[in-house]
Amino acid sequence: MEKVTRRLAKYIVATGYDDLPVAVIHEAERAFVNWIGCALGGAREPSVDISVAFHNKFSGPRDATVIGRHERLDIFRAAFANGLASSVHSFNDTHFSTVTHPTSPVAAALFALAEYRPISGRDFLTALLLGNEIQCRVASMIAAAPANCHIGISTVGVTGVIGAAVAVGKALRLDAQHMAWAIGIAANQAAGLREAHATMSSHFTPGHSARSGLEAALLAEAGYECAETMLEGEKGYANVFSENPQFHVSTEDLGTRFEAVSVSYKPYPCGFVIHPVIDACLALSTEDGVTPAQIARLDLTCNPMLTALTDRVHPTNRRNALVSFQHWAAVALAEGAAGIPQGGDDRLTDKVIAALRTRITTTCDTRIGREAVIARITLNDGRTIEHYVRDCVGSIGRPMTDNELSVKFQSQAQTLLPEVAADNLMARCWDIAAVDNVGDIAPTLVVA
Amino acid sequence: MEKVTRRLAKYIVATGYDDLPVAVIHEAERAFVNWIGCALGGAREPSVDISVAFHNKFSGPRDATVIGRHERLDIFRAAFANGLASSVHSFNDTHFSTVTHPTSPVAAALFALAEYRPISGRDFLTALLLGNEIQCRVASMIAAAPANCHIGISTVGVTGVIGAAVAVGKALRLDAQHMAWAIGIAANQAAGLREAHATMSSHFTPGHSARSGLEAALLAEAGYECAETMLEGEKGYANVFSENPQFHVSTEDLGTRFEAVSVSYKPYPCGFVIHPVIDACLALSTEDGVTPAQIARLDLTCNPMLTALTDRVHPTNRRNALVSFQHWAAVALAEGAAGIPQGGDDRLTDKVIAALRTRITTTCDTRIGREAVIARITLNDGRTIEHYVRDCVGSIGRPMTDNELSVKFQSQAQTLLPEVAADNLMARCWDIAAVDNVGDIAPTLVVA
Repeated sequence: MEKVTRRLAKYIVATGYDDLPVAVIHEAERAFVNWIGCALGGAREPSVDISVAFHNKFSGPRDATVIGRHERLDIFRAAFANGLASSVHSFNDTHFSTVTHPTSPVAAALFALAEYRPISGRDFLTALLLGNEIQCRVASMIAAAPANCHIGISTVGVTGVIGAAVAVGKALRLDAQHMAWAIGIAANQAAGLREAHATMSSHFTPGHSARSGLEAALLAEAGYECAETMLEGEKGYANVFSENPQFHVSTEDLGTRFEAVSVSYKPYPCGFVIHPVIDACLALSTEDGVTPAQIARLDLTCNPMLTALTDRVHPTNRRNALVSFQHWAAVALAEGAAGIPQGGDDRLTDKVIAALRTRITTTCDTRIGREAVIARITLNDGRTIEHYVRDCVGSIGRPMTDNELSVKFQSQAQTLLPEVAADNLMARCWDIAAVDNVGDIAPTLVVA
Repeated sequence: MEKVTRRLAKYIVATGYDDLPVAVIHEAERAFVNWIGCALGGAREPSVDISVAFHNKFSGPRDATVIGRHERLDIFRAAFANGLASSVHSFNDTHFSTVTHPTSPVAAALFALAEYRPISGRDFLTALLLGNEIQCRVASMIAAAPANCHIGISTVGVTGVIGAAVAVGKALRLDAQHMAWAIGIAANQAAGLREAHATMSSHFTPGHSARSGLEAALLAEAGYECAETMLEGEKGYANVFSENPQFHVSTEDLGTRFEAVSVSYKPYPCGFVIHPVIDACLALSTEDGVTPAQIARLDLTCNPMLTALTDRVHPTNRRNALVSFQHWAAVALAEGAAGIPQGGDDRLTDKVIAALRTRITTTCDTRIGREAVIARITLNDGRTIEHYVRDCVGSIGRPMTDNELSVKFQSQAQTLLPEVAADNLMARCWDIAAVDNVGDIAPTLVVA
């Protein structure tokens, strides 16, 4: 068995901004922009309302900002809230092979820390990248084939806490021993069950990971000891959470191959299998100028997973709508948009959209990939228009561009901020490397 | 698959003080007295010093007492500190078949709550008993044979959080749906790895369970939703933490058979296999009046586990001393006592005790049980005295009496409190059923 914990700790401690390739740093910038946008977009969901009101009662020193809100909380409670809010639309980034979502816990912990102890933009990006990298590697160790992780274990829960501890520990400039303790204290709190999915407690997990990882690193800094073999030990993390842990995956090619760059971003706040349908319907609406009144029917030739997972003609709330291809097809056709507003209650009850939802048929075909769809629309005048989407936006074959990430950011930021403020904020986020102290951005994220 | 979570929730909600047999309530009283004593005894250990200083910096409203100290913390941080301190000498109670330690997380969460929302003595005992009961049952479901739980999973970690949530939820008078959510939010935070043993992070686990369970119940009360199938679901708790979960064990004979009464208390703060040796040496010292100057040698006929686990002639710190039979034999002979002071650094370096440690021989014999020993002492004048201990104090064959629990309490309380104050405190703890608000006891636990 390799000394995984110590090897990772030494690598983290030894790696600085200048050791990271430009493309890798840029991925950290993309992850940060996407995360800030998602935190703004989720800031007013019921699970955030309830938990922020709760944390507001029990908060310690109010050093940190809850993004997109007016409450200030102690750094742990703010980390929780921002980790939660950034996940609440399932709009956060995804590491496909392990289904962990690295940036929510990592950035939430790090951003709260930056309001307590100044962190330069470069140090922030370095810490964020290393947190994401180690989180993805540890996730691969326990959850990517041939490692076998129980389906009930929330990957973002059990690995996010380690990513957060690594990022915060890096920002605190811990030495290797204290970094190993930080990883260990984080592993000792690793938790999360997928049985909670489709409830408020699904989003609890990335928030909880953020605060627990933040505390782990600060406790280690304060001298709270842990074993230095927590990841690889016989009674440790990998052996508990995986039936076939791939220890070598966690450490091989450290510093030359970066797992954190193979992270995907979602352009739409709903189940990924719906995304190619949305791509096609947006093209029909915005490129072909199709309007609801013209539409006789929409016929989809799709992967069977589309109907297996998301066949809900009339969703009744945002949670149902997250898994209704009919709703997202209809709303994308009607509005030429598929952002957070399009999953709102007013859209669910809109008569034009509801009528469109009933005019969709599907033909399943296993030759069509999950990232693909053939969408053929028939207009009332008998004309037909067909779109074939092979690689939907956000898939591995067609990653989101920086510009698309900017559009996504604005779609969320402008639900809370005036356009000019949102523009200025986004520019600062893209240029985070030049910021003296990342905590200085926080006041621009307060919304009354 | 049974609906474990809902069945347990309904049972907890439906059960009141008057539904519990007198002997069962008395076990809750014993657990409480033992827990308060352990929290006092552990209040000044390094892991408590470091973590309380840490939590003092970040605390919210200082509603709660850290037992045996002067700091006040918010209820979550106090629950953490008291859960930690009560475990730090491994002196807390043990449910043998699962090796969980029910009262540390349960009482720590509940006692902190009682300083925030008044809880009568009867309601406190009811909640404590139900928390312990459900914790032991859930532990049996996942960890008692034939259930198979990975050796690396800390039982007190993953089950203590549920016990704490149940106890707090009961005290909050949650209805069955909110109780099910509380259990679910707790299960979603269930964590702890045995790889951390023999470090400060071993004791972290019961503290973390206490605060997480406390939060789970309060969040559920505030309307934060969770799945109601978290314990039994396909992607839930039992299936993740056990390879062969025994679902029926969690619910069978609810209300007629009580798992929480089969909890053991340790009379001495050290490894259990050393306990029969201590029993014998205390008898030699206190009954036979043997003094160190008289002793030529001590010959032990013992179970092989005694030497396999605890053969350390000259321990160098309290952690080593926890697993040194020579030290505890010597100090028990020299002082007629085997409490927390007897594991202290001054005793480890004491010349008389050190000399005695070298005059002990062992003969291993598998016919001697782990709870047993034959101790034969030879005095300098040639006389020999022999004691046979069959069932050491605290074993299933010889549970600690109430009076012995009182002596244990005093041995810890008097390290911090004057004798009269310790006496008064103990009397109030034994009579907790008559107290109007358990939180009113807290001021007597403050030590400057």
